[in-house]
Amino acid sequence: MTTPTSTELRDLTTRECWDLLATRTLGRIAWTAADGPVVLPVNYGVAGETLWIRTSAYAALVREADQSPVAVEVDLVDETTRTGWSVLVRGTAHVRFPSDGGATPPDVETWPAGPRPLWVVVDPREVTGRRLVPRD
Amino acid sequence: MTTPTSTELRDLTTRECWDLLATRTLGRIAWTAADGPVVLPVNYGVAGETLWIRTSAYAALVREADQSPVAVEVDLVDETTRTGWSVLVRGTAHVRFPSDGGATPPDVETWPAGPRPLWVVVDPREVTGRRLVPRD
Repeated sequence: MTTPTSTELRDLTTRECWDLLATRTLGRIAWTAADGPVVLPVNYGVAGETLWIRTSAYAALVREADQSPVAVEVDLVDETTRTGWSVLVRGTAHVRFPSDGGATPPDVETWPAGPRPLWVVVDPREVTGRRLVPRD
Repeated sequence: MTTPTSTELRDLTTRECWDLLATRTLGRIAWTAADGPVVLPVNYGVAGETLWIRTSAYAALVREADQSPVAVEVDLVDETTRTGWSVLVRGTAHVRFPSDGGATPPDVETWPAGPRPLWVVVDPREVTGRRLVPRD
């Protein structure tokens, strides 16, 4: 196993970004609270071209980010070869209550125990990504 | 290898958070741009109780986050057992130029090729973390 001495970043197309987002279930969501940005890991699913995050009714995300701009970052990095990719979804978060009806949520399993009856749906405005590849 | 059917979150102490931050070199930094939050992966190092991030002079981070509130999230998750930890450092970013002198930067290797002469130093205001453990 060799460690590349050098890698470089290449931009991904929007299509590649969505394909990669569909391969993962753990991302990190950022929003701006009154005292500055917050970033936390979340389990998500993709439905159409929106991201769906399951959360509890008590989450700061629900209190602070509804109808607000958010960013979701998803990546997969191999620390040995130092290659991988990262996708950034920027858009607006909307809290959905179980009674809201409408689109069917994707199947999202959350890791920590406890009820997570709410969804935070992220409507993307901008989807960008980069791949870290061995340099020629 | 068994997958726990259930895990739960336990808060980490500040000391545990710093010890865990020192074991990793890849985090994600969030800042608030004019059109909403941004999150990107970065290589970082710990010096005292500050985080140091190496970056290029052209980075959006440098243009948009100097003297601003930022959040750095670092985690390590085992997707098989669904256990792991996550630490969140919230504070203020300061861009440091090579000519600034002062404290000696920690040794931070950046993965993508290209010059990264600048540092973004994060002065923490709040350091919190959680561990995802199998439920009793």
